[in-house]
Amino acid sequence: MKASLIIIGNEILSGRTQDKNLSYLANWLNEIGIQLTEVRVIRDEEDVIIETVNHLRKTYDYVFTTGGIGPTHDDITSESIAKAFSVDLEINQGALSILKEYYKDGELTEARMKMTKMPVGSELIENPVSRAPGFKMDNVFVLAGIPGIMQGMLEGARQFLKKGDVVKSKSVDIFTPESNVAEILTNLQAKYGSVEIGSYPFSKENRFGTSIVMRSTSDDQLSKCDTELKGLVKNYDTKY
Amino acid sequence: MKASLIIIGNEILSGRTQDKNLSYLANWLNEIGIQLTEVRVIRDEEDVIIETVNHLRKTYDYVFTTGGIGPTHDDITSESIAKAFSVDLEINQGALSILKEYYKDGELTEARMKMTKMPVGSELIENPVSRAPGFKMDNVFVLAGIPGIMQGMLEGARQFLKKGDVVKSKSVDIFTPESNVAEILTNLQAKYGSVEIGSYPFSKENRFGTSIVMRSTSDDQLSKCDTELKGLVKNYDTKY
Repeated sequence: MKASLIIIGNEILSGRTQDKNLSYLANWLNEIGIQLTEVRVIRDEEDVIIETVNHLRKTYDYVFTTGGIGPTHDDITSESIAKAFSVDLEINQGALSILKEYYKDGELTEARMKMTKMPVGSELIENPVSRAPGFKMDNVFVLAGIPGIMQGMLEGARQFLKKGDVVKSKSVDIFTPESNVAEILTNLQAKYGSVEIGSYPFSKENRFGTSIVMRSTSDDQLSKCDTELKGLVKNYDTKY
Repeated sequence: MKASLIIIGNEILSGRTQDKNLSYLANWLNEIGIQLTEVRVIRDEEDVIIETVNHLRKTYDYVFTTGGIGPTHDDITSESIAKAFSVDLEINQGALSILKEYYKDGELTEARMKMTKMPVGSELIENPVSRAPGFKMDNVFVLAGIPGIMQGMLEGARQFLKKGDVVKSKSVDIFTPESNVAEILTNLQAKYGSVEIGSYPFSKENRFGTSIVMRSTSDDQLSKCDTELKGLVKNYDTKY
């Protein structure tokens, strides 16, 4: 099962805000066996949102979007998703009753009513934090951009997701530069095709090192690869 | 002037590593008048890298890539860029002499030699941190993934970049929910077309608030918009 994420927001592309949703979503999806395979960060522009959503929803099992579902003029995600699916935007009765309950009489202003409007055919995704819900349209999950709210909504999205084969990982850290183990890793990767072996340099306590990460859906292959790797790098200072 | 960034790396998509290059690059580019307009995070897969590079280099003035230029088997960026440009990968003599100077006799192993291989026609981008250089191929800038090294390389890339119109920004923080100023902002945006007005909710000291960010290449329009906004929200508790 493969997923993609569309981060919608000028504030991310201007460098003003550091995205925190990518790594959270990636880890959350890993646990239910869905691999985050591609991420796009795009501007709050209707044409770009429509084109990106329509491309990715045909390419991946699931698409998540974050950002642009608030009450202000620069929140254009819901309307753009409706256009991507060629359906109207309507007041979602479920969203309306949630907001009616949340706000006192007279507080449900026109701006806040914007947050009840969703593409025809949407299913609500509850928002336990600030109530205004996200929604699911076919295989596209439309979530808030604020990390705390996005994370709450993800729990609401869980019921709609099919579990895939969970990718497990093991990692070995050794205190030597990557280049010293490059050949070992090339050979190991050739031997264990079903294990994805990555190598990442780090520096810690003023020493250079390499993190070797093995990822696989097969416990057996992962375990064999890990054991063999540990034997091959046993002469390096390690932390495992 | 518009740029895009391709973050190449399974470790970002698996959630293992939090990307720090996007916001750094965005801010760095802002200062020289280049707008980061789109970012893609993709897997270390040759076909995906080729397709993404070829699409984005035709779409934007500049493309930056980060990641995948180290000495190990999972570093396939340079080779993929060569294929994207339909040229051979060759030992770059400039890169070779840098690494020959850096490493002692016998230390320039086959794995490290991988880092001297670049597409025919590349220009070197110096790496003041760990020496192994990045490169520029036409409008594509191929940089390391480790933030400290990537940042050093960016300084080397600066000489190749044309300055654009610098986007300046002003922001106003007020302690009221976004929805209360939605109408004000809609009207203001309609009046100041050349100013991009964004609104972002925040919570600080247990109070909800809204950051209103105005961005424009025109000092005059920005200043007028800012003054008018401050008048319109003067009844809210502010921090400016």
